[in-house]
Amino acid sequence: MGPQEVAAGAALAAGRGARVLLFGPADLIGAVPTGVELVDAPVSIAKSPDPARAVRATPDASIVQATKAVADGRAHALVGAGGTGAALAAGLFNVRRARGVYRPALALPLPVPGMPVTLLDVGANAQARSEHLVQFAFMGAAFAQAVLGVERPRVGLLSNGEESERGGELVLAAGAALARHGEEGRLRFLGNVEGGDVVSGAADVIVTDGLTGNIALKLMEGVSQTMLGAVRDAAMSSWRGKLGGALLRPSLRAFREEIDPEAQGGAYLLGLRRLAVVPHGRFTREGFAHAILRAQRGAREDLVGLTHAALESAQALRTPHASGDPASLPESR
Amino acid sequence: MGPQEVAAGAALAAGRGARVLLFGPADLIGAVPTGVELVDAPVSIAKSPDPARAVRATPDASIVQATKAVADGRAHALVGAGGTGAALAAGLFNVRRARGVYRPALALPLPVPGMPVTLLDVGANAQARSEHLVQFAFMGAAFAQAVLGVERPRVGLLSNGEESERGGELVLAAGAALARHGEEGRLRFLGNVEGGDVVSGAADVIVTDGLTGNIALKLMEGVSQTMLGAVRDAAMSSWRGKLGGALLRPSLRAFREEIDPEAQGGAYLLGLRRLAVVPHGRFTREGFAHAILRAQRGAREDLVGLTHAALESAQALRTPHASGDPASLPESR
Repeated sequence: MGPQEVAAGAALAAGRGARVLLFGPADLIGAVPTGVELVDAPVSIAKSPDPARAVRATPDASIVQATKAVADGRAHALVGAGGTGAALAAGLFNVRRARGVYRPALALPLPVPGMPVTLLDVGANAQARSEHLVQFAFMGAAFAQAVLGVERPRVGLLSNGEESERGGELVLAAGAALARHGEEGRLRFLGNVEGGDVVSGAADVIVTDGLTGNIALKLMEGVSQTMLGAVRDAAMSSWRGKLGGALLRPSLRAFREEIDPEAQGGAYLLGLRRLAVVPHGRFTREGFAHAILRAQRGAREDLVGLTHAALESAQALRTPHASGDPASLPESR
Repeated sequence: MGPQEVAAGAALAAGRGARVLLFGPADLIGAVPTGVELVDAPVSIAKSPDPARAVRATPDASIVQATKAVADGRAHALVGAGGTGAALAAGLFNVRRARGVYRPALALPLPVPGMPVTLLDVGANAQARSEHLVQFAFMGAAFAQAVLGVERPRVGLLSNGEESERGGELVLAAGAALARHGEEGRLRFLGNVEGGDVVSGAADVIVTDGLTGNIALKLMEGVSQTMLGAVRDAAMSSWRGKLGGALLRPSLRAFREEIDPEAQGGAYLLGLRRLAVVPHGRFTREGFAHAILRAQRGAREDLVGLTHAALESAQALRTPHASGDPASLPESR
């Protein structure tokens, strides 16, 4: 990536109808693309080892300025293209939690062939309580509907078996609450789903805690890379393999495009007062453009309002007199 | 599978030096192979929907007879080839927990290219406490050493980041205890490992709770199948693809053999008074033979004794006056 590639993504998105307020180093970015408003912000905390501290200590950092613009209403959604840790920390710190949300969650639309499967939480919170998972289910369903365009998304709870008695205490408690919401028509809840369902397409949204979700995500990446590496090695091991690989490549291209993570825009931080998207650091301009257009869609479809309405009608909002949660972030007022 | 295939696996194992006591239907098995002693046990509970109940209600079932033979010392290890649920239930019920073990764990040597990576628990207990994970670490290390022949196995704790402050309460507590055992030289503990490390070969043994381990296992299977399916589809989609696939196949064979799950014998139930191996229901005679030979090795190397000694020297045994654990099984006396 780099500022030029991000700016090129902004230009692509602007050409497809987005309005972009870009915070970055003007001297590196050069000519400002049409449809993009550039705010010169040369200070970057993308590589900071302690993003939370850097966010507080560096008010002129580009990501801090961008999140403040979102918090002030000068922008409607955040795309944090300068380092995942910094984007998450600044998003949490400046955009802040939406009213009644216990904990934000990081949602990743997985590039499964066919329709993406949104897995959340993939790592915003390592420890979760059952009421958090219940909120994640509604947050993920609202996201899949508003941003991915899935009609009545099917929501599953990740467990070690499909039967409702499978799971640890956390899964059992969340599953019972979600089953009640399902029976009463507030959520299309499938019940428990298994690890294999993350890639089977059996559910549109899969809910888990941030520890399990993060492990699942990195395991998927590891298995995919190992297998693609094995095919590549086989295709380099002999003249037969090389020829076979060359002949197979065009047929594999469609699959590779289907599982291209850039098309999904990145990971989505849900549960803040505005939608925040965190494209992967390895993305090209196409991925950044997807992130911007998805963020725009989330704002236009009022994802935050839809989420709040769903949580409210389910009586799943955190009430003001609920027990204190010292680990959580300052809530919006 | 079927009794003939299991008997053929027993014959293969006997030919490679194992002594096999085979419980199964004599009329279906036919001629008894050399080196195999057959006990006619025509009743099977392999397909029972409630294996725990079936085990208690069906004393003449082949798996119940086999586990009793192991419990009585007529056999030194169990290979449960007639249904995973039945083998686990009968193993837990009849072979029983080893002294000082809180909970048995199901360990799976994953067929990662190079050296297998043993993941445990992959589903014996959905809920775990930190002292359980500590025992799993010692149980897994003893298994990797005695049965897989890994010198001083490297043990990692599955988390959402390598830093020791990553993880939920369970992981943090287990990590702190394991780090102490590592510093004091009782275990080669690497600290936290991430999801991708399950297939990276960075650790020989990876410890997690049964919920996360089961999700990880099924996710790996799902991702592998999806990707192999995509390559297969690409190789069937056109004449170019077909030719390419045919040319690539020989080069891919070595990889396919490296990741063949049959070579690992199946899943291993650790923490009982004897080693129990549960080959997968889809295995052929080769897989059953591997399971028998690995079980024999576990008995010969005294895995149960090694495990007990390691837990004892780490003061990680459950003490008689420890708090009651109503969910656990009757302990051996």
